[in-house]
Amino acid sequence: MSKNPESVSLCPLNSAAATEPEPLCIFGTGDLGRSLGQRLLQSGYRVVYGSRKPHSCGPLPPGTQAMSHSAAAQSAALVFICIHREHYNFLETLAPQLQGKVLVDVSNNLKKNLYPEANAEYLQRLVPGAHVVKAFNTLSAWTLQNGPSDANRQVYLCGNSAEAKQAVAETATKLGFTVLDRGSLCAARELEDFPLQLFPEWRLPLRIAVGLTAFFYFYLLIRIVIYTYVQKGDDISFRIMVSLANKVFPIVSLIMLSLCYLPGVIAAFLQLYRGTKYRRFPDWLDRWMLCRKQLGLLALAFAFLHVLYTLIIPQRYYVRNRIAGSTILLIKENKTSAFDSALAWRSDSFLSTGILGFGLYVLLGITSLPSVSNALSWREFSFVQSKLGYLTLFFCTLHTYLYGWNKFLKPTSYPWYTLPGYLLCLIVPTVVLVLKFLLLLPCMDRSLTRIRQGWDRTNKVDDGEKSLLA
Amino acid sequence: MSKNPESVSLCPLNSAAATEPEPLCIFGTGDLGRSLGQRLLQSGYRVVYGSRKPHSCGPLPPGTQAMSHSAAAQSAALVFICIHREHYNFLETLAPQLQGKVLVDVSNNLKKNLYPEANAEYLQRLVPGAHVVKAFNTLSAWTLQNGPSDANRQVYLCGNSAEAKQAVAETATKLGFTVLDRGSLCAARELEDFPLQLFPEWRLPLRIAVGLTAFFYFYLLIRIVIYTYVQKGDDISFRIMVSLANKVFPIVSLIMLSLCYLPGVIAAFLQLYRGTKYRRFPDWLDRWMLCRKQLGLLALAFAFLHVLYTLIIPQRYYVRNRIAGSTILLIKENKTSAFDSALAWRSDSFLSTGILGFGLYVLLGITSLPSVSNALSWREFSFVQSKLGYLTLFFCTLHTYLYGWNKFLKPTSYPWYTLPGYLLCLIVPTVVLVLKFLLLLPCMDRSLTRIRQGWDRTNKVDDGEKSLLA
Amino acid sequence: MSKNPESVSLCPLNSAAATEPEPLCIFGTGDLGRSLGQRLLQSGYRVVYGSRKPHSCGPLPPGTQAMSHSAAAQSAALVFICIHREHYNFLETLAPQLQGKVLVDVSNNLKKNLYPEANAEYLQRLVPGAHVVKAFNTLSAWTLQNGPSDANRQVYLCGNSAEAKQAVAETATKLGFTVLDRGSLCAARELEDFPLQLFPEWRLPLRIAVGLTAFFYFYLLIRIVIYTYVQKGDDISFRIMVSLANKVFPIVSLIMLSLCYLPGVIAAFLQLYRGTKYRRFPDWLDRWMLCRKQLGLLALAFAFLHVLYTLIIPQRYYVRNRIAGSTILLIKENKTSAFDSALAWRSDSFLSTGILGFGLYVLLGITSLPSVSNALSWREFSFVQSKLGYLTLFFCTLHTYLYGWNKFLKPTSYPWYTLPGYLLCLIVPTVVLVLKFLLLLPCMDRSLTRIRQGWDRTNKVDDGEKSLLA
Repeated sequence: MSKNPESVSLCPLNSAAATEPEPLCIFGTGDLGRSLGQRLLQSGYRVVYGSRKPHSCGPLPPGTQAMSHSAAAQSAALVFICIHREHYNFLETLAPQLQGKVLVDVSNNLKKNLYPEANAEYLQRLVPGAHVVKAFNTLSAWTLQNGPSDANRQVYLCGNSAEAKQAVAETATKLGFTVLDRGSLCAARELEDFPLQLFPEWRLPLRIAVGLTAFFYFYLLIRIVIYTYVQKGDDISFRIMVSLANKVFPIVSLIMLSLCYLPGVIAAFLQLYRGTKYRRFPDWLDRWMLCRKQLGLLALAFAFLHVLYTLIIPQRYYVRNRIAGSTILLIKENKTSAFDSALAWRSDSFLSTGILGFGLYVLLGITSLPSVSNALSWREFSFVQSKLGYLTLFFCTLHTYLYGWNKFLKPTSYPWYTLPGYLLCLIVPTVVLVLKFLLLLPCMDRSLTRIRQGWDRTNKVDDGEKSLLA
Repeated sequence: MSKNPESVSLCPLNSAAATEPEPLCIFGTGDLGRSLGQRLLQSGYRVVYGSRKPHSCGPLPPGTQAMSHSAAAQSAALVFICIHREHYNFLETLAPQLQGKVLVDVSNNLKKNLYPEANAEYLQRLVPGAHVVKAFNTLSAWTLQNGPSDANRQVYLCGNSAEAKQAVAETATKLGFTVLDRGSLCAARELEDFPLQLFPEWRLPLRIAVGLTAFFYFYLLIRIVIYTYVQKGDDISFRIMVSLANKVFPIVSLIMLSLCYLPGVIAAFLQLYRGTKYRRFPDWLDRWMLCRKQLGLLALAFAFLHVLYTLIIPQRYYVRNRIAGSTILLIKENKTSAFDSALAWRSDSFLSTGILGFGLYVLLGITSLPSVSNALSWREFSFVQSKLGYLTLFFCTLHTYLYGWNKFLKPTSYPWYTLPGYLLCLIVPTVVLVLKFLLLLPCMDRSLTRIRQGWDRTNKVDDGEKSLLA
Repeated sequence: MSKNPESVSLCPLNSAAATEPEPLCIFGTGDLGRSLGQRLLQSGYRVVYGSRKPHSCGPLPPGTQAMSHSAAAQSAALVFICIHREHYNFLETLAPQLQGKVLVDVSNNLKKNLYPEANAEYLQRLVPGAHVVKAFNTLSAWTLQNGPSDANRQVYLCGNSAEAKQAVAETATKLGFTVLDRGSLCAARELEDFPLQLFPEWRLPLRIAVGLTAFFYFYLLIRIVIYTYVQKGDDISFRIMVSLANKVFPIVSLIMLSLCYLPGVIAAFLQLYRGTKYRRFPDWLDRWMLCRKQLGLLALAFAFLHVLYTLIIPQRYYVRNRIAGSTILLIKENKTSAFDSALAWRSDSFLSTGILGFGLYVLLGITSLPSVSNALSWREFSFVQSKLGYLTLFFCTLHTYLYGWNKFLKPTSYPWYTLPGYLLCLIVPTVVLVLKFLLLLPCMDRSLTRIRQGWDRTNKVDDGEKSLLA
C-alpha cells in the first residue's frame, strides 16, 4: 500500500513533537549500516552508531551520532549488528554491555556452508546473555534503504526469545514490512541460505529439459536436415528455425509431463510390493517427487511454445509457397482437389485433442500459482493435480498418436533406420498411462487404499483405535 | 522457504543439548497419530502417546513412549486428540486429568452434517474443563508427516481460549506452518467442512456450462450435420470435432458472460422498484450473485478454447482443401478474385472486436487471481470488474453481431425453421446491455445512487447525522 | 473459506446461551453504522447505538438499542465512530466519557488532501484520553454488511496503543477478516487515501501508452492509408481495423519495453559519473524507476494483442483474397512458385525470434504476479527481471530488425519522406542495448560494482569495518 514512499518521512516530525523517539543502535558504519540507519531515521527512530573509530568512520546519515561500541550499546535496548561475520569476535569482549539487549543479526554469507553454524547462532554463542534475533537478511540493500517495494514486503525473523522477536517485529512493522515468524534460532541457517539460493528446486528439471531438448534437436537434425542433404542434395537447413523447433518442443513437453506422473506410479507399486507405507522411499524417488511441480511447469512452457510455433505455420514463407505450388500442380494436371472424409476426421481429431489437452494444461498451471493453490482445500488441490493431470496426459498422448496415425507404416519414416521422434516420445507416457490403468483396477486399488490408510502387511494394527486419516 | 525439508531435523540435537524439550501428548496410535508424532519429534518436541493398550499398540516412532491415557495426559500441557469422533466418549471419564489442558482436535468426518455439532464442540462438551482448539485438520496426512509443502503451508485454528490458541499456534509455527486464527470454537464446523468440500461454489456454474454446452451441441448437430445428411445425403460428421465445437464454445461463453452481469442489473431494478436497499434479495438472486466470479471464469475458459479453435482453422485439412478448391474453380471459370472493400471492412472489424474483447477478458481473469485482487483497493477492483467487465461484454456482443451481419436475411439460415445458434446466444447479452444502458440514464442513475447511499423511500433518515458511506 | 456466509449467523445463539455477549458501541445511525451493527450482531456481539436523537433515528437492526452518546459510550469499551469528519467536533465535549475507551475511526473522505491531518489524527486530538485506532475503512460497505468476500478479506489498522489495536484486531478476526497492522497512527492518512486511489502508479505508464498509440496510429494512417488514397486513388481504409493495429501495437510494445530498462541504464551511468551511490537521483528518474513494472506489464498487454492480431492474419478476407489472387496470377503467367531459401530463412527466423521473445515476456509477466514474486528470493527476482528481461528485449529487437531486413533500402518505403514505423521504434531499444553492452565491459562493470558496494570516490571508507552488503 505504501505506494508513495515519501509519506512516511512526514511522521517523525509530528511524533517527535509529542514524545522523544526511541533510540536504536547500529554496530557498523558500512554500506548496510548507513542504509539501515537512514531508513530508521525516516521512520521516526533516533539512531546511534557504534564504531571502532567513532571520529573517522566516514559519512553518516545527518542526525545520527557515532560513539564507541560500548557507549552506543548502553544507549539502546536494540542493537543491529551490521558487521561481517569475520569481525564478530570482538563482540565477545562487549558481553557485559550487551547483557539483556536484543541483538539483530542481519548478516549473510557469500556462499552456503562456509561455516559450521549459522551467523546468528555464532553470535548467540559469543554473547550468551543477549537475545539474538535473525532478521532483515532476506531483503536487498535497495529495499532496506528505500522501504518495502512489491516483491520485498516480507521480513522473516527467528530467535529464541519471544519478547525479543516481538520488539524486532514492531520495528519492522513501523518500517512498513510484513513480519513472518520462522520459529527459534535454529531456523537461522535456513534464513541465511535463502538469499543465496538461485532456484535450487528448478535445477534438476531444467537440466532434464535442456538435455532432452539438445538430444532431440541433434537427433532430428541428423534424421531430417542432414539425411536430406546427404541423400538428395537438398539444403533444407532453414527448417532448423521453425519446423525442427516445433518437433522438439512437443516431444520434450510430453516426455516431461509424463515424468511428472511416473514417480507417483512407481511409489504406488513400491508400496504395494512392500505392503506398507511406513518405509521410506529411496532417495532418488523422494527427490524426483519433490520436483514434480517444476517438471510440470517446464513442460507447460514447452507446450506453450509448441502452440505458438504451430499457430504461425500458415504465415511461413515456406508453407505459403508449398500450398501455392500444390494448387498450381493440381491445375496443371487438370485435377480438382478431391475431399477425403477420413483425412478430415483425422486432422480435426488431431487438432481438437491438442487444444483440449493444452486447455487443461493451462488450467493445471493456473492452479499451481501460489495464491490459487493456497485457496484450495487439499482435496480440491489433489483432484485438480491428479485427476485433471492424468486427463491432460491422456489427451496429449492421444494427440501424439493421432499425429502419427499410419505414418509408422511407411518405409520413408525410417531414414538411416532411425525411429521418428514422435514414436520415441510416446514410450514414457504410454508406460505411465498403462501402469496407472493397472492401479485403477479394483483389486489393486483396494489394496493400495488400505495401505495408505495405515494398514501394514507385517504388523497388525490395534483395531480398537482405528487408524484416523485426515 | 523451507525448500530443504531435511534442514529442520538437525535442530533437535542442538536444542536438546541446551534444554529439555517440551513434552507433548498424543491420544491415539493410528496412522495420523504416528505421522504427527514423527513430525513433532523432528521439530524438537518430546512425544508421549496415550493408548488403551499401551503395550500392544503397534509400531510407534522411535524415541516416543506409550502410556495409559491418564498417565500420558498428566505428563503434558497439550494433548493432540487423534481419535475418530465415534470413540470420543471415553474422554468424559478422563475429565479430571484433562482439567486445564489444551486439547487439539485434529479430526475430520467422512461426510458433511453427519453429526448435529462439530467434533470440537462435542469434545468441549465432554471435557468442559479443558481448552479445546480445532487445528491441523485442513492438512493432508502427507503434509503432517513430511512438513509443509507448497499448497499446504496454512494451518487454520479456532477455539475459545486465547492462551490455548497461542500455545497451539506456537507449535504449528515451530513445525513450519503459517497460522490463521479463525475465531472462536463455533467456527469449528466450518473448518471441519473445509477438507470435505470439492469446489462447492463451482457446482452451479459448472452445471450451467455443461447444460448449455450439451443443448447447443445437439441443437447444432441437428441443424447442421443431420439436416445436411437428410436433405442432401452428404456425410459431414467430421465437423463435430472442430466446426461444431467452435460454434458451441463461443455461444456458451457469451451467454455465461452475460449471466455474470444479469443479476446485478436485476438487483438494481429490484432496489429501484422497492425504493430501499434494506430489504433482502430473494434467495435465488443471492445465490446467483455469489457465483458470478465462477460464471465469469468458466466463460473465460470457453472463450480461450474458442480462440484456440479459431486460430487453428487454416491448418485444417478441410479448410485447406476448400481454399484450394475455390482457387481452382476461379481459374477454371477464368475469373480473377474480385476484391470487395465492404467485405474486408466487415471481416476485419469482426476479428478486431473479437481480439479486443478477448484481451479485456484475459485482463478480467488476471485481476480475479487472489493475489492480484488482494492488492487492489475496493474502488480499483470494482472499476475493473464492473466498467471493464461491461466493456468486455459490449465488445464480445458486437463481435457476434458482426459475425451474423446479414446472414439472418438468407432463407438458407433457417433449416427446419430453426434459428441459427448465434442469434439464440445474442438474446441474453442484448437484454443485459439494454437494461444497463437504461440504468445509466441520469434519472435512473440518480435514484439508484440515493438508494445505495441509504436513502429509503418509506423511512426518512435523520438528516443531522447524514448517512456515511465507505 | 467462509464460502457460506450464513454459517456465522448460527453461532450467536449457542454462545449467547453460554455467556452474555460483549457489548460494542456505534456512534452514528447512518448507512454505515447500520450495516456495521447488523454484521456485529450476526457475529455474536451486543450492539448499542449512540445518537443525537435516540428516539427518532430511523430504522435500526432488530435487537440493538439507541441511547444518547454519553450513555452509549459508558456501556462499552470499544466505540465505532461512524460519523462524517465534519461532525466530529461534538466529540470534544464527550472527552470525559470517552477517557480510556478504544475509538475505531472507520471514516473516509471524498477527496485526497481535503484536510491538513488524517481523520483519525484529528479524532485523537479532539479526545486525547482515548485510544484511537484507524480500521475497516478500506472495506466496501457491501463487505461490512455481508462479511468478507474474495477480494475483501484484509483489514488494515493502525494506532498508537498496542492494546487498543489488539482489541480491534480480535473483533475483526471474529468478523472473519484477516488483520494487517500498519503501525502507528501516523499511517492513518495512508489508510484513508487507499480507498480513494484509482491505480495511481498506472497513470504515467497509461498516459505514455495512449500517447504513443495515438501518435503512431495517425502517423501510419497518413503514411499508408491517406498516402495511397492521394497518390493512387485507392481506398484501403479497411486496413485501419487490423493491419494498422498490428503495426502500432508491436511498435508501442517494443518502445515501452525498452523504456522499462532505460532508467536503470541511465542510473548506472549517473552513478559512474558521480562516483558515488549516496547522492539522490533526480526526481524524474526516481518516478520513472518506480513505474517500470507498470510500463513492462502494459508493454506485455500490447505484445499479447500483437500476437493475436498476427495469428488471425490468415483468416482475413483481404489476405485470403490476395493469396488466391497471387496464385491465379502465377498460373496465368504460367510460372511455378520458385522457392527462395534465403527468404525461408529470414521468414522463419523472424517468426522464431518473435515467439521466443513473447515466451520470455510471458514468463516475466508471471513472475511479477504478487504471489509468485513473494515466493522468490531477492536474488531470484532480480535474476528473472534483469537477466531474462534483457534477453527478452534482445529477442524482440532482433525480431523487429528481421522484420525490416532490407526493406529500408527500397525507395517505396519512404512515402512523403517519412520513415517506416519499425525504424522509428528501433531507436530506443537499440540505444538501451548498446548502453547496456557498454556497462557489461569489464572496466565499467568493475567500477559500478565497487560504487554499488558503498565505495565513494570522494570519501574513503574506513577499511577496518568493511562495507557489508546484503
